[in-house]
Formats: sequence, structure tokens, C-alpha cells
Amino acid sequence: MVYLHSVLLRDLLREGLITRGVEHFAAAHVADSLVETSLRGVDSHGVHLYPHYCRAVEGGRINARPSIRISRTAASAAAVDADHAFGHHAGAVAIDAAVGMARETGVGAVSVANSSHFGAAAYFALRAARAGFLGMAFCNADALVKVYNGKSSFFGTNPICFCAPLSGEEPFCLDMATSLAAWNKVKNARTAGSTIPQGWAFDESGVGVIDPRRARSLAPLGGYKGFDLGMMVDVLCALLANGPMSRDIPPMFDAPLSVRRRVSHFFIALDISKFVPLNVFMDRLREMAGRVRATPAMEGADDAVMVAGDPEKRCYAVRIVEGIPMTDERFADLLGVIPGVAAARVSR
Amino acid sequence: MVYLHSVLLRDLLREGLITRGVEHFAAAHVADSLVETSLRGVDSHGVHLYPHYCRAVEGGRINARPSIRISRTAASAAAVDADHAFGHHAGAVAIDAAVGMARETGVGAVSVANSSHFGAAAYFALRAARAGFLGMAFCNADALVKVYNGKSSFFGTNPICFCAPLSGEEPFCLDMATSLAAWNKVKNARTAGSTIPQGWAFDESGVGVIDPRRARSLAPLGGYKGFDLGMMVDVLCALLANGPMSRDIPPMFDAPLSVRRRVSHFFIALDISKFVPLNVFMDRLREMAGRVRATPAMEGADDAVMVAGDPEKRCYAVRIVEGIPMTDERFADLLGVIPGVAAARVSR
Repeated sequence: MVYLHSVLLRDLLREGLITRGVEHFAAAHVADSLVETSLRGVDSHGVHLYPHYCRAVEGGRINARPSIRISRTAASAAAVDADHAFGHHAGAVAIDAAVGMARETGVGAVSVANSSHFGAAAYFALRAARAGFLGMAFCNADALVKVYNGKSSFFGTNPICFCAPLSGEEPFCLDMATSLAAWNKVKNARTAGSTIPQGWAFDESGVGVIDPRRARSLAPLGGYKGFDLGMMVDVLCALLANGPMSRDIPPMFDAPLSVRRRVSHFFIALDISKFVPLNVFMDRLREMAGRVRATPAMEGADDAVMVAGDPEKRCYAVRIVEGIPMTDERFADLLGVIPGVAAARVSR
Repeated sequence: MVYLHSVLLRDLLREGLITRGVEHFAAAHVADSLVETSLRGVDSHGVHLYPHYCRAVEGGRINARPSIRISRTAASAAAVDADHAFGHHAGAVAIDAAVGMARETGVGAVSVANSSHFGAAAYFALRAARAGFLGMAFCNADALVKVYNGKSSFFGTNPICFCAPLSGEEPFCLDMATSLAAWNKVKNARTAGSTIPQGWAFDESGVGVIDPRRARSLAPLGGYKGFDLGMMVDVLCALLANGPMSRDIPPMFDAPLSVRRRVSHFFIALDISKFVPLNVFMDRLREMAGRVRATPAMEGADDAVMVAGDPEKRCYAVRIVEGIPMTDERFADLLGVIPGVAAARVSR
């Protein structure tokens, strides 16, 4: 296991993109998102993806120097054409525009067309929450979640993210796929040669499997409700941005890296102070979180009683000190695309 | 079984409230919501509730002649104080205000404080969708969903509703509690003396039960994610409206009918045409729904492949012709509060 110093790592990741021709602000947003996400423990959407992103720039899927166009179509609405930019960058531009409009009008809503994978949705909603706003972020993705009662998938894992500022600590952060389990867990089980729990995934006939190699689709969160939430996300993303539906988006890893995926996003920012004084809201959210955390745990609980984002805060507190852990294999991948990354190693 | 003609029934329900001193618009919104909800087959939130509502007016919980105040705090934001009105009425006022703002600015967001049970969330979001807008409705409720890893409940069944206009048919309508199953199903099993499926509900120690009489809390939808969604709804409702959190709301049926519950709601309307031409959106949503419905069904599926709202559309098509069915017992309850309702009976 290798441990990487997050501040040094962020600088190196940014420089590695700039040397590949990526525009400065885009490179900064990508590096910032990946490192924050790894610090929060969401490794599937963090630094692990960096080598893939480098190849996606080199292959032409991601436009290193996009002309992002923002059309403000009304006082509280804007449409972004991302010109195949990094989703992290297009999303940051979009949520910042949403916050700017919300500051004036109370709410800002921004659609994003022609984008690419945006990493962790939390990166955007947290930007809004740290500015004192409610932030919401949505994204579509290639088909992976089984249609309820159907054999195969139509919608992606289409995440829903909601963040809100909280007195005395980092914002409340809910960032969830609308599938029951993450595809990454299926992939990890394939690598490990282990089985997956019944109910997570299905084969091509829609029959449940525990052998991860036979998995073709994932279970929606909580049956038909999770499936419906996934459709809601695709309506907000693909339909408002007039981009391809989940079913028509090429897969992230299996499609050629020259293929542009045209992922769509949607963001909402709400100015809390237009509804209630911000300090009252933040204190009451602190009280709410505190009361939930103080609820007696049931016998045999797999962990303490927590609210959304607590596991990530716990992980952040450790990794900001000890560094971001990485297997030797992942680290070798990273060295392959930025040899200088060895400088970020923490000696332990 | 008794069948009731929906148009006659709506008029009678409205008149029954007016004779109890309920203000005309409020009475119309309540009657309209209850009949539409029963036509859509959501009996737990439809006409069945009418006798309870009459008693809540008589007991003083619901204010028959409220002074609803709307403060427009910004171009896209308004805060409503419902003055303990029927939630159906306060919610209709709020979603109409949200749509009005969205027409100007692209988005409208409205919080509602000091309200009461608002019936089916779909009633409000459908109003927005029929006007060509995206509609979202949220509501908090008394504590009923078990805290993840905890013994007892903190949040209510806190629903999420999302509606969108669809070419050639009624809008797409997702209206879901953030619990796995409805409390009403537990109550029905109690009445029937039957068991409930493992995983739906828990006793006071947080242990799963199949005996509905021992159920004290419900499972959140899909584990911790559903619990987190319930908290999101309470943040949007209780915290933006500065009203009581779910845990502090008196129960609907077990609290004295003189007690005002101070339920909070939250509504968002989005003007689709500020993002994409409305007809393009509606046609593409039709295409999306059509493609999902055409997905091959898996073997042993419990029903056809559908999208959110399809079961309700199917039920509406039957009931608008045959009438709203009601057990003799429920009908006797209804006769008790509006003797004239016998006039709405359909002879079969």
C-alpha cells in the first residue's frame, strides 16, 4: 500500500493534465474533485480514475480545450453546452452559475449538455453548500440498472446528490446512485474471485446471480421506486439538456476512447436565506443531525447511527493526515501517466 | 361494495365541507384532490380520509377559514404561512405560486409552514405538469421510518413527488414514500388479521416483525439510502419552513383532533421551455416511456413493464367509468358525515 499526500497530489494531477494540453481551470477542477473524493473515501470516483481520464483526453473523447457556452435563458435558468469538456469542469461552471442566479433570485437551475463523466456528484453540491446554499446535482450514465419487471437495463446508476450547510462541521451530504449496490463492488468481486450478495445483480435474462462474472445489470434501489428515481434523473438530465438517454450513452470503459459520450447533468442551487435566516437553518440542521446520531443503536447494528456523509467525514479526517491510500497496482498505473507522482508519497 | 360517481361525489364532498364552514376555495381543493386520488387508485390518500378531515375541522386542528400569507422573498422564492389550513389548499396555493414565478424566471420554489396533511403529493406536482412545467412536491410527516442502524423512528414516510408532461397522455408521475412499504398496508394487515412480509416493519427494539400488531416503525426504502432521502425531505420541508421536524409532529390519527400538527411542505416548479422546446421535451418523454414499456418482461414478473404512474393511469381509466369503489363499512362512515352522498351511488 502506498499513501499519497493530498495537497502535493492535487498539484501533480493538475500539472499532469496541463502537460496533456488541458486548459488550466479544467485541470484544476478535475484534480480538486479527484483528490477531495479520494479524501472522502469514495475511491471509485477519486484518483483511481485519473489514468483513464488521461487516456480519454489522448483518445479525443474528452475535449482538452472546450468552448463551454452558457446561455442564461431566464433570471433563474441557464443551459450549458459543455463541448465535451471534463464533466468535473463543466459541472463546476454550471453549479457556480446556479449559485450566482440563486443569490439574485432565490433559485438557479442549470442543464448541461454534451458533457462527460463528472466524477462524484458531491463535488458540485458541496460547492453550493459551502457557499450557504442548498445544492442538488444529477447525472445520467450508460444503461446498467435493470428495468423493474424487465430483463435488461435502460437507465444508468443515475445519481442524486443533495447537500446543505451545517453549523460547526462540513455540510450534510447525500450522494447516492439509484441502484442498490455500486457496479464497482461487482467489478471488485470479479477481481477478487468472490461472490456477490443475492439481490445485487442479474444476468442477461434478468435472473439474480451471485457470480459477479455473470452480472449484466444491477438491482434498482428498493425495487420499482429506485427504478422510478433513476428515470426521474434521466428526465432532469437527458430531456432538459436534449442529450441522449441513458440507454443511448456509450459505456465509459468499454467504448473506444475516441467516442464522445454526451453525458447530461442537471444542477439546482437554492438560497436558504430567502426562506429562513441561514444561521437558523444551519443550527437546526446541526440539531437534527445530532438528534439522529443520538438515537439508540439497535442490537447487531453494523455501525453507529449516522446521517448521510458521516462515513465520508470520518474517512476525510484520517486521510487528510495519513494520506490517500492506494494499492501498489493502482499506484503503478498512476506512475505510468505521471511519473512525478512519486514525490507525493508519504513515508510511514 | 358501493361505487360512487366521481363528478357527483366531488360536488358533494365540497358542499359537505362548505356546510362545516370551510372557505370555498379550500373546500374545492380538498374535494378535487380526494376524488382525483381515489380515481388514481391511491385509496389511502383519497376519499377514505374525508370523515377524518371533517372531524379535524370540527376539533379545531384544521382551520376552516385560514388567512394564508404568501411572502415573495425573491423573484423565484416565496414562503407561505398556511395558518393551519387544509394542506391540500395551502399546497395548491403554493404550487400555483411556484408555477407563476417559474413562468417569469424559469424556476419557482415555495416553502409552506404551519400546514396540515396535504393528501397525495401528486395532486400538486400534476397541477404543474399539466401546465407544462416540471413539478416537485415534498412533505414531512410524523416519525415512522426506522433510523438506519437505530431502534426507533425519527423521520416520517416523507414523500418525494416528481411530475413531467408527456405527449398524448397524462403526465409522468412519480409519487413515493421514502419507506419501503406504506404504513397503510400494515394497518390493513392488522384489520385482516394477516401477517406482513419480513423486512417491512420493526418492533420497538428495531427487530423485524411479521405480526403487524407489533410493528412500531417501517423500513426505509433500500436501507440507508431511503433513510437519507427521508432526511433530505425533512431538510427541504421542516428546515426551510422553520417548522417542526418529523420527530416533533403529532401523529395524524392518534393525537387529539384539537392539536395542530404544523406539517411543512416544499414545492418546486421548473419551466421546461427555458431549457428545451416544450414539445421536444414532451415527445422525447413519450419516446422514453414507450421504450421502457417495450423492454421485454422477465420470466415470472409480477406485472408488465411500466413507468411511474402507469398503474394509476390504468386505475383511473376504469374508475372514471365504473365509479370509485368503497367497502360498505367505508361508505357508512362517509354517510355519517354527509348523508347526501347516497346520491352519488352508481347502480350496477
